[in-house]
Amino acid sequence: MEKQKIAVLGAGSWGTGLAQVINDNGHEARLWSYNPEQVNEINTKHTNSAYLGNQKFAENIKAYSDLSEALNGVDGVLFVVPTKAIREVAKQVNEVIDHKVYVMHASKGLEQGTHKRISEILEEEIPQELRSDIIVVSGPSHAEEVAVRDLTLITAASNSENDAKYVQRLLSNNYFRIYTNNDVVGVETAGALKNIIAVGAGALHGLGYGDNAKAAIITRGLAEITRLGVALGADPLTYIGLSGVGDLIVTGTSPHSRNWRAGNALGKGEKLKDIESNMGMVIEGVSTTKAAYELANSLNIEMPITEVIYNVLYNDANLREAIENVMTREFRSENEYSI
Amino acid sequence: MEKQKIAVLGAGSWGTGLAQVINDNGHEARLWSYNPEQVNEINTKHTNSAYLGNQKFAENIKAYSDLSEALNGVDGVLFVVPTKAIREVAKQVNEVIDHKVYVMHASKGLEQGTHKRISEILEEEIPQELRSDIIVVSGPSHAEEVAVRDLTLITAASNSENDAKYVQRLLSNNYFRIYTNNDVVGVETAGALKNIIAVGAGALHGLGYGDNAKAAIITRGLAEITRLGVALGADPLTYIGLSGVGDLIVTGTSPHSRNWRAGNALGKGEKLKDIESNMGMVIEGVSTTKAAYELANSLNIEMPITEVIYNVLYNDANLREAIENVMTREFRSENEYSI
Repeated sequence: MEKQKIAVLGAGSWGTGLAQVINDNGHEARLWSYNPEQVNEINTKHTNSAYLGNQKFAENIKAYSDLSEALNGVDGVLFVVPTKAIREVAKQVNEVIDHKVYVMHASKGLEQGTHKRISEILEEEIPQELRSDIIVVSGPSHAEEVAVRDLTLITAASNSENDAKYVQRLLSNNYFRIYTNNDVVGVETAGALKNIIAVGAGALHGLGYGDNAKAAIITRGLAEITRLGVALGADPLTYIGLSGVGDLIVTGTSPHSRNWRAGNALGKGEKLKDIESNMGMVIEGVSTTKAAYELANSLNIEMPITEVIYNVLYNDANLREAIENVMTREFRSENEYSI
Repeated sequence: MEKQKIAVLGAGSWGTGLAQVINDNGHEARLWSYNPEQVNEINTKHTNSAYLGNQKFAENIKAYSDLSEALNGVDGVLFVVPTKAIREVAKQVNEVIDHKVYVMHASKGLEQGTHKRISEILEEEIPQELRSDIIVVSGPSHAEEVAVRDLTLITAASNSENDAKYVQRLLSNNYFRIYTNNDVVGVETAGALKNIIAVGAGALHGLGYGDNAKAAIITRGLAEITRLGVALGADPLTYIGLSGVGDLIVTGTSPHSRNWRAGNALGKGEKLKDIESNMGMVIEGVSTTKAAYELANSLNIEMPITEVIYNVLYNDANLREAIENVMTREFRSENEYSI
């Protein structure tokens, strides 16, 4: 593959990690951020200390605060901004882009109010003649581990097999391996909704429960996000893959995950407001819980764990009581994924 | 449900934990062991120190070394012996049982040589008129946590819904929750084969890999055990449930699991013989790897991770080389569970 120019929009830990993968593969990675101080730090010190400590990045990775400069002549645009910023940034991209590009994203969430997936927002804001089919990059990937080039396997999902394979070729190397997937709805909902379950698993840990209970909430959580995803048109088997089970294992069992840490803090009795201000980074699971709760209600899908997390986050419900209630509810059968 | 008499065959940590659940639910739990010293310890000191340390069990839980005494007048028999002992113990049960009983098992493995599932062995050795349909008890359940009554959710699978519901009623209480399932092949193969992947995840940890890589091997491992299970007639969605994903999370991410610990020791360079003698307990994953490898070959199913573990365990292959090779093999698509 000849040298590609890729604009990575969003210079958080994940955007920076992906920019490094692109640069390692011999392509030009441009990192766009709305924060001029961060842009300056990356360009002069080659660090991104707010997200990735002291780690030095290659001087080739240039940061931009001007979007039209970052997008000038690029082959592809990779969105890695928080979900709440996706639509606004996509509008800006549409204003400055003057040629057809690959449009990828590695963000995980649902839009507040509309409950739309990120690829739906991108499809709405960037006209078809200016872009490929959207490609979703998702899977078990602590950015901190990718940044130090630890072995990572993830998924690139698109309605177009060719567009998914473009991303596979662009990003794959000896430490970063990409599997293609054709189930965009499944991969996006898995990535977004797993953050809710990670909050729940962290909460059980904070409350003092053991590994059996945490495995159980992850599994029953996976069952309910599969139910919602299937109602939206996903293949249930996608949830057994890297963007489902894989990402849930990383997010739902590890203190590296912000969503898990937020749940753990809730379990220990901290209040959401304090948790959010202490964290200083976006906790996607918190807003995704609201969107998923509303969506499940509108579609009449049973999501008992999501409901508990919602009531704890937004209605000040007692966490221990609510979670014990859902984990010990009436006898059930497991064979219920499709309803 | 009226008071049941249940013989639990096998007084390891899991058999003892299940006997306590049965006793907690007001039933009579009889614990059979081939080891007279252990029987004596349980009956006089009410501890099972080789498996569960100092924990005291209820005096109601009686241990037996005589199988006909243990089986006298029971309503159900729950097999929890190691896989390699299942057929022999089932033959003995068949010799002494004189009335129809519920036949359950909570063992996880495949028979060496025949590659049969445990329910198949039980069906062969105990004639239909003396038993219910076999009920399989499986799921994410460190025995040590069940023994201290930590919240645990597991699966009871049977071809007969009524027989599965019997076990659901028998075992359920406020800390132990049972979901029924009708996919015996799926639940048994998930429980058995996940031990192979746990060895692999432990090995990656021992080699120094991070969470991304461990989540990846668990996910790709799940994909290949699903492939084998589907070839044997299982529903692929079973692997997303408690006996699949759930058990794999507990076994594949936790140092509590012997299979994970064995893999971790392999990763640190120890030899299988030493690991087995240090452990002093059966490591089901080691023999299951052999059975699964042979079975996959005979059915022409691709199981690259199982093959690596097999070659490391039985052909002295270099673990790091073999595992890096499989984790970085050629570009693939994720949509391949059914072949």
